[in-house]
Amino acid sequence: MNFEIIKELSVTSPEKIVMLVLDGLGGLPEPKSGKTELETAIIPNLDAVAAKGICGLSDPIAPGITPGSGPGHLALFGYDPLANRIGRGVLEAVGIDVDLGSEDMATRGNFCTVDNKGVITDRRAGRISTKKCTELCRILDGMKIEGVDIKLYPVREHRFVVVFSGRGLQTAITESDPSRTGVAPMEIKAESPAARNTADIVNKFIARAKEALAAHQPANMILLRGFAKKPQLPSMKEIYKLNPLAIAAYPMYRGLARLVGMGVADTGAGIIEKIKTLKKNYQKHDFFFLHIKLTDTAGEDGDFTRKVKLLEEVDAALPALTALKPDVLVVTGDHSTPAVFSGHSWHPVPVAISSKYCRTDGVKEFSENAFISGGLGRIHATDIMPLAMANACKLIKFGA
Amino acid sequence: MNFEIIKELSVTSPEKIVMLVLDGLGGLPEPKSGKTELETAIIPNLDAVAAKGICGLSDPIAPGITPGSGPGHLALFGYDPLANRIGRGVLEAVGIDVDLGSEDMATRGNFCTVDNKGVITDRRAGRISTKKCTELCRILDGMKIEGVDIKLYPVREHRFVVVFSGRGLQTAITESDPSRTGVAPMEIKAESPAARNTADIVNKFIARAKEALAAHQPANMILLRGFAKKPQLPSMKEIYKLNPLAIAAYPMYRGLARLVGMGVADTGAGIIEKIKTLKKNYQKHDFFFLHIKLTDTAGEDGDFTRKVKLLEEVDAALPALTALKPDVLVVTGDHSTPAVFSGHSWHPVPVAISSKYCRTDGVKEFSENAFISGGLGRIHATDIMPLAMANACKLIKFGA
Repeated sequence: MNFEIIKELSVTSPEKIVMLVLDGLGGLPEPKSGKTELETAIIPNLDAVAAKGICGLSDPIAPGITPGSGPGHLALFGYDPLANRIGRGVLEAVGIDVDLGSEDMATRGNFCTVDNKGVITDRRAGRISTKKCTELCRILDGMKIEGVDIKLYPVREHRFVVVFSGRGLQTAITESDPSRTGVAPMEIKAESPAARNTADIVNKFIARAKEALAAHQPANMILLRGFAKKPQLPSMKEIYKLNPLAIAAYPMYRGLARLVGMGVADTGAGIIEKIKTLKKNYQKHDFFFLHIKLTDTAGEDGDFTRKVKLLEEVDAALPALTALKPDVLVVTGDHSTPAVFSGHSWHPVPVAISSKYCRTDGVKEFSENAFISGGLGRIHATDIMPLAMANACKLIKFGA
Repeated sequence: MNFEIIKELSVTSPEKIVMLVLDGLGGLPEPKSGKTELETAIIPNLDAVAAKGICGLSDPIAPGITPGSGPGHLALFGYDPLANRIGRGVLEAVGIDVDLGSEDMATRGNFCTVDNKGVITDRRAGRISTKKCTELCRILDGMKIEGVDIKLYPVREHRFVVVFSGRGLQTAITESDPSRTGVAPMEIKAESPAARNTADIVNKFIARAKEALAAHQPANMILLRGFAKKPQLPSMKEIYKLNPLAIAAYPMYRGLARLVGMGVADTGAGIIEKIKTLKKNYQKHDFFFLHIKLTDTAGEDGDFTRKVKLLEEVDAALPALTALKPDVLVVTGDHSTPAVFSGHSWHPVPVAISSKYCRTDGVKEFSENAFISGGLGRIHATDIMPLAMANACKLIKFGA
């Protein structure tokens, strides 16, 4: 959908939209039972949402394309994920409240362990404490290499963000993290002649970091990946005239919400805390993005039973959310993460939209298979926001 | 789907994809029984593919648009048929191994019969033998008109290809074949001022051919249609990193496969021979396009019973194919050719994709109606390749 049209048609109204995103929601059948996670879980409240609402399946990017979390969420917020690419470094940085300038280049970092030959033995340095990570970041923070200021920010455990500030930095460089142990960190290489200077600066930074960390076993080296600059996205306020609030605990999703101009609430990790946060802020906003991470983590870990249990936990908490009687409730995911696939997948994602005017279909059960015959059919994820807006009476008629 | 994205995400893997294309697959109900060809045929093996796989209907071009064989197949291979037009002349030429240069203009030709007033009495010259066609082509071959070299290549029976080689040839010219008898061949006309010289050369060629053939009754004249130059298509290797093989007998499909960079196997016309060819080449390639022409021919001939029988023949041969256990099996068509319509039609085409990770739906029967409620929904035919690639684990995640 073209943002210019939505901008033209969107209006402010008292109606409230809650978008509940169960990360990695869609699944695949477990071979023995032939049932997916959603089909296995006992989820009467989600089933009720499906029965009251209109249901369907959505493609976050396009049929066959497996989305990362960034593009999956951008699509849910209505942004074309192919036209708006966001690098991992930027997501991590904005997720910890780092205010990136338009020239800044951010990257994700890991403290890791290398042996005396420089070979990686642990990509996470034994998951050092966040406190230790903070101390080590302080050691490396504040370098200046060839006019470029380098700042470090601890994230959690072994993870941190590096921000390079200077003119002419180019993100077309390779990563140093080989994503496996038993090999040495890779040299950063320029992917275009213009990026040679940037690659050089980053390599010098890594060399200096190695020296400075030599005595800090197991965190005696760093790995960098996801070099990126901040994209210029129009805010959800500009597009939809919404005053949106994100209720998410995991840094990356908080960062993503900030990139599209959402407010970000302080909240706990569980669904119960998040619904409490929703309740507390309910009068102050008209759009709420409520993010549940753990369903995805269970899928990525290949833990079918845990994903089922987590879906049941979400279901059990749901009445506290529906008690608020949001005018529009959207329940969906950013992509599928089937436990039998142990990773994000390309499969379309269940989506249910419940509202007074949703045109309820015959679907009674919240599942991948039941949603095939839903009234929404198979849609593009970027259609979800316009549909939510319409159901909330926030889009006026197009043309006379 | 944008090829740049697919290029970025595609990886080589050991998984094998077999795309079985039953030309003109989709049908319409026969008025008496109310059943389509697929619903009438007894096809337990195709039903089993549907039951194991995920099913749906695909639009080769767009709803309401009837595809020719060229665009229908281009879409199956993932190429946007509206952005990549291929003229008939080019398809015929590459189908008989004629290597076209970028400046060459190819056209399809028929030997035909005209009476002493120049009126066409038989558009196919009594379907002269291929041997006779070869002799006549030799007579007309090798002319040079205004610096343009003209070469003729026999195809089969009355059909041949003409290749005009020279600078500045323009394909915006009309055809000489009126597609009916009782009238004279039409004069070639330029559709743009720049094409006047080309039209002039082709008219001169036709006039000389008429003279040279005067004594060769019934093949005493030629009809030309489908003037075209070769389009510049990226190869399937470039896009998908596949090593594809076409198993097709009919020249046009072999030519089309070559245009997208497929290897083309020597094979017989029947499905049994084609599956033998598949078996023989199975270890050497990772993508196989297996084309069955006769289903379309029966549809075009309006022969409902023959189309049903051919579907049953394909079904009977299918176990030899599935015994190879391809990681991904796609069964579909390039367009519908309902026997009651006696021609290609705009109706969406059944498509089934079977793989370990396909997310099986509830469809148990291989038919147009059963596929309406399939898990693929209604997709664009260009989505089939990305889906096949994803199911073969040949596409990595998009974005972080």
